[in-house]
This record gives sequence, structure tokens and C-alpha cells, in this order.
Amino acid sequence: MISIPKGTKDVLPSTSYKWQFIEDCAREVARQFNINEVRTPVFEHTELFARGVGDTTDIVNKEMYTFLDKGGRSITLKPEGTAGVARMFIENGLASSPLPMKSFYITPCYRYERPQAGRLREFHQFGVEVYGSPSPAADAEVIFAASSFLNKLGIKDTRLEINSIGCKTCRAQYNAALRDYFKPRLAEMCATCNERFTKNPLRMLDCKEEECKKIAAGAPSILDYLCPDCAAHFESVKNLLSAQGIEYVVNPGIVRGLDYYTRTVFEFVSTSIGAQGTVCAGGRYDGLIAELGGSQTPAVGFAAGLERLMLLMDNTGVSFPAPHVPAIYIAGMDDVSRAKAFALVGALRARGISAECDLMGRSVKAQLKYADKLGAQYVAVIGESELATSSVNLKKMSDGSTNCVQLDDIGKYITENQGGTNG
Amino acid sequence: MISIPKGTKDVLPSTSYKWQFIEDCAREVARQFNINEVRTPVFEHTELFARGVGDTTDIVNKEMYTFLDKGGRSITLKPEGTAGVARMFIENGLASSPLPMKSFYITPCYRYERPQAGRLREFHQFGVEVYGSPSPAADAEVIFAASSFLNKLGIKDTRLEINSIGCKTCRAQYNAALRDYFKPRLAEMCATCNERFTKNPLRMLDCKEEECKKIAAGAPSILDYLCPDCAAHFESVKNLLSAQGIEYVVNPGIVRGLDYYTRTVFEFVSTSIGAQGTVCAGGRYDGLIAELGGSQTPAVGFAAGLERLMLLMDNTGVSFPAPHVPAIYIAGMDDVSRAKAFALVGALRARGISAECDLMGRSVKAQLKYADKLGAQYVAVIGESELATSSVNLKKMSDGSTNCVQLDDIGKYITENQGGTNG
Repeated sequence: MISIPKGTKDVLPSTSYKWQFIEDCAREVARQFNINEVRTPVFEHTELFARGVGDTTDIVNKEMYTFLDKGGRSITLKPEGTAGVARMFIENGLASSPLPMKSFYITPCYRYERPQAGRLREFHQFGVEVYGSPSPAADAEVIFAASSFLNKLGIKDTRLEINSIGCKTCRAQYNAALRDYFKPRLAEMCATCNERFTKNPLRMLDCKEEECKKIAAGAPSILDYLCPDCAAHFESVKNLLSAQGIEYVVNPGIVRGLDYYTRTVFEFVSTSIGAQGTVCAGGRYDGLIAELGGSQTPAVGFAAGLERLMLLMDNTGVSFPAPHVPAIYIAGMDDVSRAKAFALVGALRARGISAECDLMGRSVKAQLKYADKLGAQYVAVIGESELATSSVNLKKMSDGSTNCVQLDDIGKYITENQGGTNG
Repeated sequence: MISIPKGTKDVLPSTSYKWQFIEDCAREVARQFNINEVRTPVFEHTELFARGVGDTTDIVNKEMYTFLDKGGRSITLKPEGTAGVARMFIENGLASSPLPMKSFYITPCYRYERPQAGRLREFHQFGVEVYGSPSPAADAEVIFAASSFLNKLGIKDTRLEINSIGCKTCRAQYNAALRDYFKPRLAEMCATCNERFTKNPLRMLDCKEEECKKIAAGAPSILDYLCPDCAAHFESVKNLLSAQGIEYVVNPGIVRGLDYYTRTVFEFVSTSIGAQGTVCAGGRYDGLIAELGGSQTPAVGFAAGLERLMLLMDNTGVSFPAPHVPAIYIAGMDDVSRAKAFALVGALRARGISAECDLMGRSVKAQLKYADKLGAQYVAVIGESELATSSVNLKKMSDGSTNCVQLDDIGKYITENQGGTNG
């Protein structure tokens, strides 16, 4: 038997409604916010991610699905969603379309990591990208969209943490301050931190080693080093959040290690017991489009990992809408009435009604058992007498009540009596 | 600048509504037919496709995106959708769930081919799989689903061609007849046909070489070699199609070359000038699940290439529903009213209304120009006097009419006056 590749998961017919719900919520928020969908290929030239994600990151160095295609080109399965959208924006000259360009994607992503709960090698992200606006209103808009998405999913118990990591000017001064702080403590810190001390001390704040974390906790705050423009931008973002009634805490520990990240960074962190961690993260990356060869274009966005959201929803008892069930199952007692059932079902479907009949040549008893397993809302059994009178008893399964209906009127009857169900 | 990989395409924000429409049609048909969605990984162990697609096919021999992952496993980007679903069915023991299992997928697929119109290296398929039913009703059901999908898309001018390729018993006799027919003509036929003569003469009917096609046209018909069971099955399928008013032509030239294909095969062929070709193909493959290591399970399904459908729709002038536009754009005359506009827009979105405001710090004139580009249905401009009176003139862009509305009542007004639009 051939098994599924390690770190990937099937979505079975019995659970796909949960994924559909999460994606429908994403699409509905996008509609409210006038955010258009975009799609980019699953693989890109490897260089895009080396430049767009950063060739000093673990993602690029250790975790990418990179291979040569038959033409000898190095291609990589996308490890995240932003780089492809940025490439699309540049390649199609969208800087000259009406800005801001507000777009979203729902995409699989690929990272060769050790599989664990909520972390797969093939996983899925919903992300939003707003290109072209330097205004704090764009930062706030993106945070609202993320917040609306979590609300729509029914996820409670998340905390919004925000920070500003300034611009190049602020960062140069802050890096100097960080080096002053870490220099006498380097001997106690891990090899990676020691390496980062020279290259990019900001990323030392991100280390997961216990000892390093303790030391980093006492480091100076980026917020004390923001230039006046960056400080004013951050104040505006906070004011817009407050005016909309969005609660947040400022966490100067949130950083992004790459040069093209600027100003606002944020994370929605789950506070549910047993399900802590970041469920959605975003920020501003005004340097990305230029880094990838486009003209200087401000950008802000977020991404949410759908597997992690699903895990959180399951762990915290968030309820999903009930899955779809057929409005009606029409059983046939013999070959002739089975053929009639088949034709009736076809006519009902043509009216937009989800209808079902036997495809197995089963007995009526077995058909009714199957109808019950499907959860059909109405059930009808057709035999000789029903064919003779062109009418049938429709049984409503929720209360067992029956009504005699002309065969040709089944569709009308169901449309009129189905209100508020999911058939 | 980094370009998109050859043979792949972006879906831009301005055209994604067309893809959404095609997929919505697929999902709506699936709902009517009670076909549940399934999802399988983009890559599988290479062996799955060698066995499930067939290691004598061009797809497997020449066109697969195959590579070693970091663990040294040979994995392949899926070249089609069925093998993964079959693997899922077996691996998850779904043979013991209520049968038939009716499932659909919408998935990217990957074939390293020479890119041409409607044929990409990354393309997308909508497919339906019905597992567990040997009945002709299942064949007919799958054909109805395909037909309903094409109808819902608004595609006309397609012809349904059907055939039966029988079972092992019929095929053995037919292969003998084919060899008798082709043997004296082999010298005039291509190298591939000569190779297939020994291995699998059925596939000689599929050759695209002009000379071979001419010769194949005179070959005996599989329909004259069907065993009584297969002939009866084919008759039943045809009767069910006719009873449902589905027109078809029998084309004994449609074949599938692999051993696990059985009985019904069908294709929907476009008859539009300039857009000929198969847009949807399917059939029965009762041997597939067993070939992949599962217990013997009858199976029937189809797949449609979405890029090819899109091309056909564009070429034949099928109209798509209009893309989404915002219900309202609220412009602000200064920083204070801009902030108010931002808050109002947030409140409208919370009511489910798609609303938009300035994220660029633009002048009112520039804001109105942007609102016009977005196609907003209503436009309001807020300034000092609007803030003072808590009311604003809402301009309906389709006819230029205006109505004075309290700021807090904008949502109510739009909900009541928006009927039948796509905002």
C-alpha cells in the first residue's frame, strides 16, 4: 500500500466542511473589505524566496522544497505566500493600477520541518497584502481585517500584540544599543545569538533558548529609539485601533529580522489554555517590493496558518456550522420506480435542490438506512402505487410527519418547507 | 527582476472573479449532487502515479515533476487528481464508510509539457469520483454531474461522446481482433504504434499521427466485442441518459489504454469554431483501487481542466457575472472626517456591507476618482458640516440621485436599497 507523504494530511469527505467554513469566512471578510483574490503558482524560481524571505532565515536555509525541473531551473515550492504576490505585482506592473492594491490569497505552503500538532510540511495560509499605501490607516485596516476574520471564525481568547520596529534610521541606532547591551553577556548566549550579534542583533530578541530569552528580556526597547516619523506613525495606528474599539497590548519583543520590514508588526496570540501561540502575524514591509526589483512601494499585510486555526478551534470547542445534507432522498421499490426516482432526482437538482437516490441497486430497507446515514431531510419511497397515483408521501425526518405530494410538486413543496436548513 | 516560472500563470486581482465563478459553479453542482469535497496533498510518493496513472503513459514517463525531498524520498507533484483520492480512500479505510462515496476535488496539477494555449505546466482540475457502485446509474450520475457543471458555466456547443471499452474478457478478444487488423498494416504505422501492437493494441486507436489515424479509423469496433454483461451495462447507461434528456453520440474511437479502465468512457467535446477539443473526460475504472493495493472497489468519475474551460468561455463569449464592487465609498475632506469615514466603514463592514474609504491621504477629488475606479455603488463625502449635522448625502452612482441620510443610518439605508446588486 502506498501511504501519504510524511507531514501532509488528507481532507476527508466527512471533514471538508470545516475547511470550507474557514475559507468562506476568509472570503466573506475579504468581500467586506474589498480585498480581491490573487493566485500565484505553487512553485517559483528559488531566487525569489532567497531574496523575498531572506537567505539568512531557517526557512530558506533548511526548510525549502527545492529541486531542479526538467529544464535545469532551480524551483521551490512556496514556503509562504507574500513573495509570490510581490513578484506578481512587479512582473505585471500593478504599481500603475489604482492603488492601494488590496489582495488576499489562500494557498498551500511547504516547509520541510519536523511534523507536530498544527505544524505540517504542507500547510495552508490565508494572507492579505495591501500595496501602495504608506499611511497608518493601511496598517490599521490590515489589523481590522485579521481581527474580523478571527471574530467570524468564532475564535475568542486571542490577544493582539503590536510593536513598531522603525525604519533604517531608527534601526541603526537601536542595533548599536543592542550591541552595547549584549556585548558583555555574549559568553552566556547560544552560538546562533553570537553569530547574529554581528550580522543582525535584532534577531537575538527572537531566540528560543531559555538563557538567551532571559537575557533578551532586559534588552533596550526599540520604542525608545524610534525616529519622530516612525513614532508618529505608531501613535496613529494605535489611535485608529482604539477608535475602532480594538484592544491591543504593546509588546516591544515582537521583531522581524529582515531589513525590508519596517514600522508596524503585530501578532494575534491565543490565550486559551493548551493552545497558546501565534495564530496570525503581520506587519509592514516597505522594503520588500524594491528588494525584489520593483519600484519603492509601501506594503503591509498579514498571514494566518489555517491548520493552526483549525487546531485552536477544535481545542477550544468553537462550533462549526453543520455540514451539508441532502434535502431529499427518493427510494425506489423496484427497477421501474428506481428509474423514476433517478429522473425525479435529476429534475430536483435542476431546480437547485440537493437530492439523492440509489446508485447501488439496494433494497428499500438498505436505501432508507443509507438515506438516514446521509441525514436527508425528507425521504420518499416510490413503488407501483406511487407511480399509479403520481403522488408520494414525503416524510420529514426531523419530526416523522408525512405529507402526500404530487410527484411533480416535490420540488415546490421542498422549496417552500425547507426554510433555514442546509440542504 | 525575477519572473514567473515558465508554463505557470498568475491570477491577477482583476480576473480572479472569473476563477471564483467557475469554482462556485463546481461547488454548487456538487451540493446539488451531494458530492463532498476532498483534498489530497500537492505531492505524493512517485510510486503512486507510476501505478495509478500508468508507467507506460507519457505523463509518467516524460512529464512529471519528480524530485527527492530532503529525506531522500522520491516525490512527485500530482499530474492529475484521481490517484491521490484513490490513495486516500484506501489509506483511510473508506471502503467501510457508507457507499457510494461521492467526492470532488479542485486541485492544481503539474505536467512538464510545452506550454500552449489552454495547456500549462501548472493547471487546475475539477474532478468527481464515485467509489463503490458498479451500477450503470453511477456512470449516468457522473455524466449528469459533468453536464450540469458545463450548463451552469453557460457553456453551449459541446457534444457528449460515449463508448464502452468492456472488461478484461471483452478486451482480450478485442485485442486479438485489433492485432489481426493492424498486423498487415504495421509497416505504414509509426514506431509508437508498432511498439503498442505488442504491449497494448488498444492504444493504437489513440495515435495522433495522420497516417496511423487513417488506418485506425477502419479498425474493428470494441462495441462488437462486448460481453453480454458489459453490453447490458452500456445499454442501461444510454437509457438513463435518454430518460434524463441528455443527448449523446456513441464514438467507439474513445479508449483508455490502461488495464484498470472498464466499461463506460465519455468525453464532452467542444464544437465551437476555433475551440475544438475535449473539455471534460471521464469513465469507469473498476480496477484502479485494487491496482493501488485496496480491496476491489468499482469506481467512476470525470475531470475537467479549468484553464481549458476558461479559454473556451472567453473564446465563445460566455459571460461571467460582474465582479464584486464596494457598496459604498466614504470620502473624508480632512483628517478629522477621514478618521470618521474610517470608523463608519468599520461599522458598515461589521454589518456585512462592503465599504471602502481612503488609505492614501488623498484629496477629496482623488478619493472620488478612486471610488469611481472601484465601481462603488454609493459615494458619500464627509466634512465639517456633515460631522456637525451627523448626516450626509448618499449619491447613487448608477443614476446620480442623492439622499440625505443620518450617519448612523447609512448601513440600514444601503441594506434596504441595495437589492440585487453584487456589493
